[in-house]
Amino acid sequence: MNKNKKVYLDYNATTPVDPLVQKAMNPYFNKRFGNTMSLHYWGQEAKIALDESRQTIAKIIGAKSEEVIFTGSATESNNLAIKGVALANNPNDQKQIITTTIEHPSVIESMGWLKERGVEIAKVGVDSSGLVNSLEIEKAIKKETILVSIIHASNEIGVIQPIKEIGRLCRDRGVYFHIDATQTLGKLPIDVEEMNIDLLTASAHKIYGPKGVGLLFRRRGVKITPLLHGGGQEQKIRGGTVNTAGVVGFAKASEIAANLMEEENKRITQLRDELIGEVLKIKGAYLNGHPQKRIATNANFWFSFLEGESLAILLSLKGIAVSTGSACSSDKLQASPVLLAIGLNHSQAHGSLRVSLGRWTTREEINYFIKALIQSINQLRKTSPLK
Amino acid sequence: MNKNKKVYLDYNATTPVDPLVQKAMNPYFNKRFGNTMSLHYWGQEAKIALDESRQTIAKIIGAKSEEVIFTGSATESNNLAIKGVALANNPNDQKQIITTTIEHPSVIESMGWLKERGVEIAKVGVDSSGLVNSLEIEKAIKKETILVSIIHASNEIGVIQPIKEIGRLCRDRGVYFHIDATQTLGKLPIDVEEMNIDLLTASAHKIYGPKGVGLLFRRRGVKITPLLHGGGQEQKIRGGTVNTAGVVGFAKASEIAANLMEEENKRITQLRDELIGEVLKIKGAYLNGHPQKRIATNANFWFSFLEGESLAILLSLKGIAVSTGSACSSDKLQASPVLLAIGLNHSQAHGSLRVSLGRWTTREEINYFIKALIQSINQLRKTSPLK
Repeated sequence: MNKNKKVYLDYNATTPVDPLVQKAMNPYFNKRFGNTMSLHYWGQEAKIALDESRQTIAKIIGAKSEEVIFTGSATESNNLAIKGVALANNPNDQKQIITTTIEHPSVIESMGWLKERGVEIAKVGVDSSGLVNSLEIEKAIKKETILVSIIHASNEIGVIQPIKEIGRLCRDRGVYFHIDATQTLGKLPIDVEEMNIDLLTASAHKIYGPKGVGLLFRRRGVKITPLLHGGGQEQKIRGGTVNTAGVVGFAKASEIAANLMEEENKRITQLRDELIGEVLKIKGAYLNGHPQKRIATNANFWFSFLEGESLAILLSLKGIAVSTGSACSSDKLQASPVLLAIGLNHSQAHGSLRVSLGRWTTREEINYFIKALIQSINQLRKTSPLK
Repeated sequence: MNKNKKVYLDYNATTPVDPLVQKAMNPYFNKRFGNTMSLHYWGQEAKIALDESRQTIAKIIGAKSEEVIFTGSATESNNLAIKGVALANNPNDQKQIITTTIEHPSVIESMGWLKERGVEIAKVGVDSSGLVNSLEIEKAIKKETILVSIIHASNEIGVIQPIKEIGRLCRDRGVYFHIDATQTLGKLPIDVEEMNIDLLTASAHKIYGPKGVGLLFRRRGVKITPLLHGGGQEQKIRGGTVNTAGVVGFAKASEIAANLMEEENKRITQLRDELIGEVLKIKGAYLNGHPQKRIATNANFWFSFLEGESLAILLSLKGIAVSTGSACSSDKLQASPVLLAIGLNHSQAHGSLRVSLGRWTTREEINYFIKALIQSINQLRKTSPLK
């Protein structure tokens, strides 16, 4: 195989910044560099860029401009949504929050922190395809419930949850509804009105925007306690000098993603399904997660008699980037809780591999990957102690 | 006056990114874009950049590499230091934190949040030059004290506090010591060992680095609760995908600032002192804050029979950026608490103006500013209802 070949198939972990996004950001580093809180020319120039960026993204998700709060990451937005609601609502009452068994670490850990402080956390399971059953959510709702928090599409297995159904349910029962849309903004249509979403997390770096910028949509009237207290920026919900270049980049990235959504989803789904077809021809290869109800960019497999970690390393030596579990937790040695939640046992979970496609993925890259994958699997299985 | 002239004298609010910093950041948007948590080539490339950046900054402040935690802003670092220590230490005991009357809003608001949760906050005053007396700190320390938090140099009046003295004191009394060094990293020598600092806040965008990146130095062994729970990044203290480009930019900016510190301090002090000399020739003009014990970049005045806000607007129309209060709170209409703390009354505080110099400030700009200032003051006083 070509030693200098590089094939990036880890787009669900992070994406390169689109050159058009970088171009949009560039002036805000050195020329239009003002602090959005300053009243002079430089400050107002930055403030206008901030307002316009807010409008751009608000429009894409069907929100009002002032409902978009820029943060430093999806992790921050998840923490802010979950802890913020728990700390702001009914401080002296018993409180319960409902979530699922397939959430991102930032959601799980925020919930864990609240649990230590007396908040009851109810975790609803998923079926073997990774789908949450809205009836299970309904059963879990009780009078102490203040929030339902669900990942729109899993960062590991890409499965898309029935958000509209659950949103309807939460609205009917008077419970706040938060979705982690980090893997879906710009990849799936989102309408916070139609879906009855009260809080929504998203991130720029998953959609060809810069790292270090996230957002929280907060429906007007939803009570929330800030995590970062400061000088009154972002509707007094999130202090700190606004990262204008980052925010402008996020808006540009969202706009491009929204415009390309239909055609890119079609193109990538086709490539991804070809990839799945080829991989499933390999003996002892299985797809994790629902075959259709998943975001276009995601494929996730388990291979019998294999360690996913070893496979990823071997592929990395062949210039290919894929991952085991999510990047957010891939330096931990535990089996992925998401894969265990869909019914895999520890050895199957450890034999899993996520392959995620993106804007610059080509058929040639997929072919190269398949060839390298087959080689690597054969090589590993030959010497596998698991066999 | 020249209509198209632009003179930026608000460097304490924010700074343009140094072109060398932007150049260092550029590859990390699009080429070296990996997630530092990924095990493959792209991830490791990003991880190396993160580690090197951490080392660079650690060296500048005399810290160990693993003691530097990257965050999204100085506001986040202040929140993390203060709330993090309060939440982590002696959860069931009475707790007291000592701070001063001249802190940044992110410190004040974090303290306010803790106060609502039963933590006692002791605020030590300053003298009329803005200096904290370490004996006052000593008097305030009691057995419930867990933390002393002090701004190294004020963002509004630039006054430099006797950090080494207070650090010695805190160490002797077994109390954690946090400094907000947002205005001093790269402008004053800092040695966390020599100064007995346990926690230190800094920010990239005040030293010609990008917005959206801060850091918290946390001495090894200092117990702290994360604010942003997540995937285990930054020693498990701060979750969220690492903003590699931002972190690389912060390191480069720190390096440049450290290298230029001596010569720039000399050059800027001279310009600033000339500026102060000229301004004090104006009738009814007074300097706020200690004349010598202040960072080179900062000048802050009050003018009798004037509204600082009106003066700033008039100067802005002449293409000049200065500020009233700090940018972090300049859209509020209250008088600056910092100026009230040094003994100004409300009308004096409202008549104040901060002029802050930086890397690209020239003598020509200072001359232009002085001319415009005199014109503006005359114009305003002619019609002043205050007179």
